[in-house]
Amino acid sequence: MAIKSATIHKLLEKYHEISVLNHINATLNWDLNVNLPSKAGKGRSEQIGYITTLITEKWHDPEFRKIVEDAQSEKNLTDEEKAIVRNITYATKYYYSVPKELIIKKEKVTSEAFPVWNQAREENDFKKFLPYLTEIFDITRQTAEYLKYKTNPYDALLDQYEPELTAAECQQLFDGLKKELVPLIKNITHSKKYTDNIAFINGTQHYLQEDQKKIFDYIVHKMGYDFTSGRIDTSPHPFTTTLGPHDVRLTTSYNLKDFRESFTATMHEAGHGLYEQRINPKHAHTPLEGGVSLGIHESLSRFWENMIGKNPHFIRSVAPLFQTLYSQQVGLISVETLIHAFNMVKPNLIRIHADEVSYSLHIILRFEMENELINNKLQVKDAPEAWREKAKKYLSIVPETDKEGILQDVHWTYGAIGYFPSYAMGNIYGAQFLNKMKQDIDIDETLSRGNLIPVKDWLDDRIHTHGSLYFPKELLMKVTGEKLNSKHFINYLTKKYTKIYDL
Amino acid sequence: MAIKSATIHKLLEKYHEISVLNHINATLNWDLNVNLPSKAGKGRSEQIGYITTLITEKWHDPEFRKIVEDAQSEKNLTDEEKAIVRNITYATKYYYSVPKELIIKKEKVTSEAFPVWNQAREENDFKKFLPYLTEIFDITRQTAEYLKYKTNPYDALLDQYEPELTAAECQQLFDGLKKELVPLIKNITHSKKYTDNIAFINGTQHYLQEDQKKIFDYIVHKMGYDFTSGRIDTSPHPFTTTLGPHDVRLTTSYNLKDFRESFTATMHEAGHGLYEQRINPKHAHTPLEGGVSLGIHESLSRFWENMIGKNPHFIRSVAPLFQTLYSQQVGLISVETLIHAFNMVKPNLIRIHADEVSYSLHIILRFEMENELINNKLQVKDAPEAWREKAKKYLSIVPETDKEGILQDVHWTYGAIGYFPSYAMGNIYGAQFLNKMKQDIDIDETLSRGNLIPVKDWLDDRIHTHGSLYFPKELLMKVTGEKLNSKHFINYLTKKYTKIYDL
Repeated sequence: MAIKSATIHKLLEKYHEISVLNHINATLNWDLNVNLPSKAGKGRSEQIGYITTLITEKWHDPEFRKIVEDAQSEKNLTDEEKAIVRNITYATKYYYSVPKELIIKKEKVTSEAFPVWNQAREENDFKKFLPYLTEIFDITRQTAEYLKYKTNPYDALLDQYEPELTAAECQQLFDGLKKELVPLIKNITHSKKYTDNIAFINGTQHYLQEDQKKIFDYIVHKMGYDFTSGRIDTSPHPFTTTLGPHDVRLTTSYNLKDFRESFTATMHEAGHGLYEQRINPKHAHTPLEGGVSLGIHESLSRFWENMIGKNPHFIRSVAPLFQTLYSQQVGLISVETLIHAFNMVKPNLIRIHADEVSYSLHIILRFEMENELINNKLQVKDAPEAWREKAKKYLSIVPETDKEGILQDVHWTYGAIGYFPSYAMGNIYGAQFLNKMKQDIDIDETLSRGNLIPVKDWLDDRIHTHGSLYFPKELLMKVTGEKLNSKHFINYLTKKYTKIYDL
Repeated sequence: MAIKSATIHKLLEKYHEISVLNHINATLNWDLNVNLPSKAGKGRSEQIGYITTLITEKWHDPEFRKIVEDAQSEKNLTDEEKAIVRNITYATKYYYSVPKELIIKKEKVTSEAFPVWNQAREENDFKKFLPYLTEIFDITRQTAEYLKYKTNPYDALLDQYEPELTAAECQQLFDGLKKELVPLIKNITHSKKYTDNIAFINGTQHYLQEDQKKIFDYIVHKMGYDFTSGRIDTSPHPFTTTLGPHDVRLTTSYNLKDFRESFTATMHEAGHGLYEQRINPKHAHTPLEGGVSLGIHESLSRFWENMIGKNPHFIRSVAPLFQTLYSQQVGLISVETLIHAFNMVKPNLIRIHADEVSYSLHIILRFEMENELINNKLQVKDAPEAWREKAKKYLSIVPETDKEGILQDVHWTYGAIGYFPSYAMGNIYGAQFLNKMKQDIDIDETLSRGNLIPVKDWLDDRIHTHGSLYFPKELLMKVTGEKLNSKHFINYLTKKYTKIYDL
């Protein structure tokens, strides 16, 4: 790398250790999720805790802090050097701004809250979780004050997960989505061609894990994922993690009754994996390593999951796989039916089971509630009712239990407030990328031939390779020449579903 | 634990960290051997190196060293406290006695030597490896001087791997073995009943990995190995490692042409695994955690591999497994033939493929050479020829290449000189344990019923539970009431093979 500044050199040397420790922790966590014997949890927690403490000590090390401050006041830095300082500033912000006591308090409350949330969800008893959630929002409000913001404390929280994103921007983008998506869903589900009753996915079938695995391995290969620098394993919840240079691993889980879910979930994870695998190796062990933000990461994973994985031309090209391996169930089904199955729009109470069209509405609901809760326009005790109202308004269905409502997600339990919007931002960024990509590649044509490499190569050159060199908005401008906007996502959905369902 | 001394408490607190770091390194190493993508080696090395450096720093930490010294001068310690101090003294001996420069020099030479050894072995070119091996023996001789010894520098090396074992003891025990084993092998291979030509293991068959795996899982369960505190995976070379409390993992490899090898290798590893799993949990994270020595570990693994796994009554009880799963190859074979197959004695040039009777002779050869090399009675340059002479004398076969001779093992490349004898000590200890066990349990009867639990329980109570509380000779005396001797091993082999081959 073209690093001329001696201070930046020192900074990189120190950061390298943090990076190695992060990879060690990623390995311990990956193994925890994929391999850990049932009785070994306590021992593994202690190991992860030990490394986490070492990492925190490194960030707080006065010598390191001094180098960071020196770097921040350096003049005449190159663009790469500036990006390094920017990322370090961003990464240290929470540690250096928020008092240690508040950080410790948050860790304590959230670790106590987890089992309570689990039980409250099982027993559908929000009251049990209420005091914890109230305290988590209190701590988060205080945290926002320390992190500082211009107008809305929620901005400080959003910025932690998606750099430079503001609540006002979200509101504007999301209002645009709401206005279009709510009627679009109605149009789809009321169209003549629409059915949510397709025999091979009605829950009575059985799709062997080994057959599903063959298809996943094949598709992930086709996407250009490199098995010499990664692997696919099984875990209860699919995830992707980087264990070191040339070691980016995916996991998937198997829905034995419905092959669609695991298929697109695997493409989703491979989207994350491709991003991490294809970052320029010169960024390894520097603050430019890894994807730049949750939103950009989700833009790529959701791009592969939905915009590629559910593209009718792509489904047509891979139909023989399903028809051969699931011959008893899918063998005699028309490709048209398969396309409808993959693109079935049906509002679901549970976010993680939502279809491509209604997914963003789940996020908008959460964004609006978080924004109101942080600004004290809504009280935590009233949140379950607010949830129900919004679900009715946006999804036209009302959760009968909080288990299917406010208790469904773990994020708040961890204190991750401001995280959800990055999922919807992924859809928006992704559609902007797709719109630009279509100017360079005949996507439908290449997908018809089952050739995913032009798509991967395009992403490699324009997005993957940069790692964390550009912040999301700068990257978006570089790649598309446009500012953040939701019109491409709305157009994409409208056009696609109009065609599939003859709207 | 009944720890009264404040100094020992402080020592345990410090040691706890070292223990956690050791488990982290074990996890990184396990994953390296089981899962690592092919391009990820360099990154993983760096992670392991980082943790290894942390561990070394902990051992050398002046504060820790002071506590160790205080503990060493404590009076009125309980037996457990004494054992803790003894084990810490033993573990720190190398670090505190050998100058840092020599340790670093050894690390440098051995890490350079590894690829050279690999190439020399592939090209069958000992000369290429000669300068490295010469330097490794030089460094080891110097190391022995720093470690101190009474009469023979080789004693200092043996003691590192098998506490308190001396070259004179080895010589006496091994002379006894040589005298009996060399003629026993001749008797067996010349007996009327002997054949080394058995169709189902002649290398033309194929035994599916999934069938072998079913049998391994079953047998390891039967041995009492706890899958809630461990797991079995695949790796190029089988090994067992402890990744944390309640996390003892085995690996195995599959010989698809000969199911015997993987079957007994799996029982071997499960023998190691049972030892580590069944140590009293109160010893976790203390210097009493883990098996006490390589020799005792091998006594248990080789006990299960050979004395149980190849016992004719046991083979008879598990024969239906082989006959069912390998029905095409073994289905119509008599149990007698299966017993002969598992107990085929046939001198082999390669140690790791040696049968139960000739195995010790491979070790004796290495012991004698190491002893001569360390005492300058043999020069490294003359070692290949010495190897050939001994192979001829003890095994009646002569390696045509150094690849099948002196270059076959990796141990010396790592500087592990004094390590080999622990394998043969395993056979000797194991037979002493078996002799005692037979006074308490009708082994043949319980094996006939395929019931391995009484054997496991016996080992649990007398050996496993203690971890590193007793040094090998003390443990042996506690368990058997006898001193180290080779007569039980000789009796065991003679009696068993006389019966199988009608000698």
